[in-house]
Amino acid sequence: MSLKPLLATLRGEKLARPPIWIMRQAGRYLPEYREVRAKAGTFLDLCYTPDLAVEVTLQPLRRFDLDAAILFSDILVIPDALGQKVRFEVGEGPLLEPVTAASIAALQPERVVERLAPVLETVKRLRAALAPDKTLIGFCGSPWTVATYMIGGRGSPDQAAARLFALREPQAFAALMEMLVASSVDYLVAQLQAGADVVQLFESWALNLDDENFASHVIEPNRRIVEGVRQKVPGAPIIGFPRGAAGNLARYAAQTGVDALGLDYATPLEFARTHLPAALPVQGNLDPLRLVAGGDQLDRRVDAIIAAFADRPHIFNLGHGIVPDTPIAHVERLVNRVKAG
Amino acid sequence: MSLKPLLATLRGEKLARPPIWIMRQAGRYLPEYREVRAKAGTFLDLCYTPDLAVEVTLQPLRRFDLDAAILFSDILVIPDALGQKVRFEVGEGPLLEPVTAASIAALQPERVVERLAPVLETVKRLRAALAPDKTLIGFCGSPWTVATYMIGGRGSPDQAAARLFALREPQAFAALMEMLVASSVDYLVAQLQAGADVVQLFESWALNLDDENFASHVIEPNRRIVEGVRQKVPGAPIIGFPRGAAGNLARYAAQTGVDALGLDYATPLEFARTHLPAALPVQGNLDPLRLVAGGDQLDRRVDAIIAAFADRPHIFNLGHGIVPDTPIAHVERLVNRVKAG
Repeated sequence: MSLKPLLATLRGEKLARPPIWIMRQAGRYLPEYREVRAKAGTFLDLCYTPDLAVEVTLQPLRRFDLDAAILFSDILVIPDALGQKVRFEVGEGPLLEPVTAASIAALQPERVVERLAPVLETVKRLRAALAPDKTLIGFCGSPWTVATYMIGGRGSPDQAAARLFALREPQAFAALMEMLVASSVDYLVAQLQAGADVVQLFESWALNLDDENFASHVIEPNRRIVEGVRQKVPGAPIIGFPRGAAGNLARYAAQTGVDALGLDYATPLEFARTHLPAALPVQGNLDPLRLVAGGDQLDRRVDAIIAAFADRPHIFNLGHGIVPDTPIAHVERLVNRVKAG
Repeated sequence: MSLKPLLATLRGEKLARPPIWIMRQAGRYLPEYREVRAKAGTFLDLCYTPDLAVEVTLQPLRRFDLDAAILFSDILVIPDALGQKVRFEVGEGPLLEPVTAASIAALQPERVVERLAPVLETVKRLRAALAPDKTLIGFCGSPWTVATYMIGGRGSPDQAAARLFALREPQAFAALMEMLVASSVDYLVAQLQAGADVVQLFESWALNLDDENFASHVIEPNRRIVEGVRQKVPGAPIIGFPRGAAGNLARYAAQTGVDALGLDYATPLEFARTHLPAALPVQGNLDPLRLVAGGDQLDRRVDAIIAAFADRPHIFNLGHGIVPDTPIAHVERLVNRVKAG
């Protein structure tokens, strides 16, 4: 059997039309998602209940001709499994009791995989449920991004709390990052063993680091995760998505060893074409608000993105997660245009 | 008389040590600023009262051996002068009644310079008060950045309201941008005529635009402002600071015609060295949190920045505004290190 289109692309094959999936494709813009979400208790209950997590993961594939399902979960299940309580408040996003230099030592990295057993059960069921041409994507948050929430206690536009902590408490910060690298390797290996075809590293907050901190907080931990995962699952396909890496993008691609690079929507097409290795598969990078607005501008931009990456392996995607007020008709229009050419 | 150090640098001269100023150097980290601020009514009252604005502008130069004073004002005086009410709420930042396609037509660009007469009076007094070797920097917000507040009604990490407005109401958006370009030219020309040596364009929200929108919302309006200002004040030195421009930085530098490029702290030093024209003066780019944390890491990074730009004209600065909890001793340490070598 030939490879699934998305996996073939990750292996360096250039297809006639790019495969497509959509970040946060299982989400609030879908009424059937909102219905399931209303039945679950907390957001993490939804992530930890395989019946419900499988259902919402598969929902977008019933509506749209997507090439991949992405495990429905959250980047903060790792802190939760480490023993740092995570709550999701409506309208506020995630809230955590911030870690301190002292509390980091009390976290329990050895419990992570065991505590995330329900997520791994979801992966196993998804593997069985998916059609053979659909790729199953697992994921985790990259250590720096996860650490920004663990240290800051919530999302923030500038990650100031974590950036200051790293400068003021370098040893405690290093211990936390070490723990996150090891836990991420364990967790991703378990996902791959449960049936994920590929895993993506979400480095969602790569944008506010100077080059020295980018190297130590982003590149090195991501590199070690890639290395650690491949030691246990040789050849495992890994996509890195360092959102906001910008001028650090080429370094990230060259030094982490990822198979493909997710591009945020602010990455200029010409910049990506000329600054990244010619054969490197890329994924992206439509502005999600263009999908909200729809119309001609959407079509034109979709065509421009496909044309820009016509000479390299390319997975079509948004350059950030789909937003809740995206009209479903626009998603259909997008997927059809990418598929039909 | 030889040129002031900062102006010489903007003219392409490479000095033995870089001149230095600090974004938001007149600000809340200074107790003497907080004292004046407490006496003023609103934040805009402070901007519009020459006695007070002159005082706070000069305060940092009394403490530190800085090479420039920057007019104490705000990027939102233009919307205020256009007739869109701007309030500053403590802990919330600026709040505006968002413009609509209909209300844009009612704005009054012809009144901008007249309404900003108090700011121009401040510039005039600063010119008279400053020592001859100190450069006086005027500024305005670039049109896209100002528009994000006018449309969104407040600051936001992703500028979603303005980005959607631009996609959905392209004509109204173009009319607003046109008005902002014209008002910015008038206002900057008036600042230069009142005694500013140089002006800086603050494009603080350049980071969430795809390349097509970056070209239309950032590059073209900034280019037109540079052109318009130079038509009336030939040779006026202009610094562009497109925060978050990242992969668009080289394009911005090449196409807008600015004399120098402000670099945010996330711009990798090696990237700036290799991707920008060799003779282009740059300004930046220390992470303000390194200045908060202080110590060896601060010294090392200051040295690294100076070394990276040793072969081109360089103005030392932070890569974003100084934050309120910066210890004054750290600022002294920074300025002394930059000056002393």
